[in-house]
Amino acid sequence: MSVANSRRVRGLSPRIQTPHPAQSPSGRFRHLLPQGEKEERTKPKVTTHPNDPSLRSFIDVDPASDFPIQNLPYGVFSTAAYPAPRVGIAIGNYVLDLWALEQDCRLDVGPLGVFSAPSLNSFMALGPKVWAKTRARISELLRHDHPELRDNEELRKQALVPMRDARLHLPFTVSGYTDFYSSKEHATNVGVMFRGKDNALQPNWLHMPIAYNGRASTVVVSGTKVKRPRGQLKPPNVEVPSFAPCKRLDFELEMGVVVGQPSPMGGMLTEQQAEEMIFGFVLLNDWSARDIQQWEYVPLGPFLAKAFATSISPWVVTREALEPFRLNGPEQSPAPLDYLRQSRPQNYDLELDVSLRAAGTNAADTISRTNFKYMYWSSVQQLTHHASSGCAMNVGDLLGSGTISGPEKNQRGSLLEISWNGTEPVELPGGAKRSFLEDGDSLVMRGWCQGNGYRVGFGEVEGTILAAE
Amino acid sequence: MSVANSRRVRGLSPRIQTPHPAQSPSGRFRHLLPQGEKEERTKPKVTTHPNDPSLRSFIDVDPASDFPIQNLPYGVFSTAAYPAPRVGIAIGNYVLDLWALEQDCRLDVGPLGVFSAPSLNSFMALGPKVWAKTRARISELLRHDHPELRDNEELRKQALVPMRDARLHLPFTVSGYTDFYSSKEHATNVGVMFRGKDNALQPNWLHMPIAYNGRASTVVVSGTKVKRPRGQLKPPNVEVPSFAPCKRLDFELEMGVVVGQPSPMGGMLTEQQAEEMIFGFVLLNDWSARDIQQWEYVPLGPFLAKAFATSISPWVVTREALEPFRLNGPEQSPAPLDYLRQSRPQNYDLELDVSLRAAGTNAADTISRTNFKYMYWSSVQQLTHHASSGCAMNVGDLLGSGTISGPEKNQRGSLLEISWNGTEPVELPGGAKRSFLEDGDSLVMRGWCQGNGYRVGFGEVEGTILAAE
Repeated sequence: MSVANSRRVRGLSPRIQTPHPAQSPSGRFRHLLPQGEKEERTKPKVTTHPNDPSLRSFIDVDPASDFPIQNLPYGVFSTAAYPAPRVGIAIGNYVLDLWALEQDCRLDVGPLGVFSAPSLNSFMALGPKVWAKTRARISELLRHDHPELRDNEELRKQALVPMRDARLHLPFTVSGYTDFYSSKEHATNVGVMFRGKDNALQPNWLHMPIAYNGRASTVVVSGTKVKRPRGQLKPPNVEVPSFAPCKRLDFELEMGVVVGQPSPMGGMLTEQQAEEMIFGFVLLNDWSARDIQQWEYVPLGPFLAKAFATSISPWVVTREALEPFRLNGPEQSPAPLDYLRQSRPQNYDLELDVSLRAAGTNAADTISRTNFKYMYWSSVQQLTHHASSGCAMNVGDLLGSGTISGPEKNQRGSLLEISWNGTEPVELPGGAKRSFLEDGDSLVMRGWCQGNGYRVGFGEVEGTILAAE
Repeated sequence: MSVANSRRVRGLSPRIQTPHPAQSPSGRFRHLLPQGEKEERTKPKVTTHPNDPSLRSFIDVDPASDFPIQNLPYGVFSTAAYPAPRVGIAIGNYVLDLWALEQDCRLDVGPLGVFSAPSLNSFMALGPKVWAKTRARISELLRHDHPELRDNEELRKQALVPMRDARLHLPFTVSGYTDFYSSKEHATNVGVMFRGKDNALQPNWLHMPIAYNGRASTVVVSGTKVKRPRGQLKPPNVEVPSFAPCKRLDFELEMGVVVGQPSPMGGMLTEQQAEEMIFGFVLLNDWSARDIQQWEYVPLGPFLAKAFATSISPWVVTREALEPFRLNGPEQSPAPLDYLRQSRPQNYDLELDVSLRAAGTNAADTISRTNFKYMYWSSVQQLTHHASSGCAMNVGDLLGSGTISGPEKNQRGSLLEISWNGTEPVELPGGAKRSFLEDGDSLVMRGWCQGNGYRVGFGEVEGTILAAE
């Protein structure tokens, strides 16, 4: 009998009959071809780059809005009037319905129906040239000096949905979820707490971006309530474990990389290939049950302590929109091995804010302010490392950066660090004290890159804790 | 703006327009309803149970075959004449084409086209009552005393494909892959090797089925060649790591549970609910790079060392077909916590054989013979534990049992144990010596339950090692 591997690009329907790039090897790994083989027809026709700070939209956008014309993040939304989830982009206080534009022949991305899908996966599978062309075209359609949409009242009514009328869904089908551990400050804080100052960083930490596989089935969109998990607890002072609700429930402030192109099993990635596979980024809260983890995680790592929920923002900000905010990360010493070397700045100047609304109160108070730029290992290094053993990457893979902590005390990305393992509870202005999260608490993360007169933002990722059953 | 969780049943196409049980809560979690709510129309009409040892097929089946009428394992296959992958079952030396039977109105499972899919996921989503009804109907069609297929030459020609003409594909889309560590003998062997006899088992091991999330993107079907992975290596005697091909490449003998029904985020499972979610089992080889793992795995567990390939058998043997071979597992002491208690035997008397064909030789030699019955934690306990923190389970989840070792030296399920970490290389009858796998080596696993005059078998899972690039 003959036997064959029929692995498919995950996150894509095996039943879709329209051809897409995954069907032929030359299409599937087109992004891995040399630069010379560019296709003429996919070149954007507009001359102003969609990142140009001088661009304005005919839609009024507040300078404090996360969604100016320089951003154009992708999401999946539905409305009461038309409840089928479909693809849109955020502009000011509106969602632009890309399926409406596609039906009206204003957007041509190839296979019709990519924007009528309930996830971004089919669009992402089309590859970086289509991403760039589409973003440029949407930018054009939204410009204050471009009449096509601006002066078409009927189409505006069809395609522009007030944000308050939009229900936002998980933006993509998560194929695999991997959680990294790439903030040196976070790893050091945790190390000092549990192993003391002299052994804070494990010997491997400076040589590779340490990570573990997370659970994709519980990645949920902002606003989804999070039930306090139950699990085996065995504090050091008791003899036998009990099964009970987690007592040390925490958040973790992370960014998530959304992988938009596959790489083959058995292959490796260059810096450029890895970069071109990244479709965009989301805010990510990797909820953590510290007490469940403490008992379960030796020797195979975190499992159920991290498997009950991971929340992400509904808007995926494209890698392209973040381009103007690139900068060098911290110096890496020792120098990384060749396969992890970077030839250009791969970090981003991206402000992050965490606020906590204690149960029974109305106001959310900031408990951490930090920046994505502090990450020791970049997203490109994470992706390169991930594929380096021959691990296939898929459209819709989500890579959590790991908890983002900065060098200062007010820049810590988890309650474990903020309360120093419960020994220094945080006091909120309203009077509440917290070492870990209590039932009814809500946690909100925000993130943005500050431009001159505009910000490229992520909106928020919010989650409220429900009592265990 | 309103925000909602739009998680879908993974492994199912979001684009399939036909209704399926996942669309309504009462359908999606129908298997979690009390026993009383059985549906009359799904009751099998045949009176002889398909597991009856006295059943015979009109197709001649050798008593040593893995695929008698008492088995009926599901797979996905294609042929040169009709290259679209579709669902079939193995019977003797034939594949029975279920799509051909469905088109001829011989099988009615509801939504037409379930068997024309390139994976079992859509069929599995229909639930355990449909699984039982379908298996009973296929058994009826194959009986020696049932004329419907036996005497229909045209249909036989359509539906019965000689096994040698069938190309076998990955049988289901793997939603999530979890690798357990549930053989006490294996965990003890590894513990003794690395920590000494007194600390062989970690303190948590006897209290829960320890596991970590694996990588679903590289689960491949038997016959897929496996490229030797590269990775960071830092043997204890060198100062800095290098990036090089793995030198200590190993197999792990495991069984895989195929989850056929979802469970909700935030929920827990009873023993019966967990059991009813299990569609079937496969043979599983969890290839392992011991040297990569040794350097990367502290503190977050195995990652790239296990991410390059996991091979499974092409045939999924149903849980129902294994019913006659149930038995009690080893006594569990201390008694498991309540949520892990079992009221009935949940292990299986399932013989396992591992053979190695050294590069450049023609004969495969048995290097291990063991039995699935030795597992300390059962598959039902693994699934119950997995969901216990509120982790959603999906159709197509794959749970590796963990390496299966028995109490005897010739029952060890990995070369790490067989060669005792390279100190006692195994000598093959042909003269080759192995501590770990070399390029060109082929590894074959077989498994079967021995009935009286027949065996319910899994076929094999084979993989050959290619050199690193």
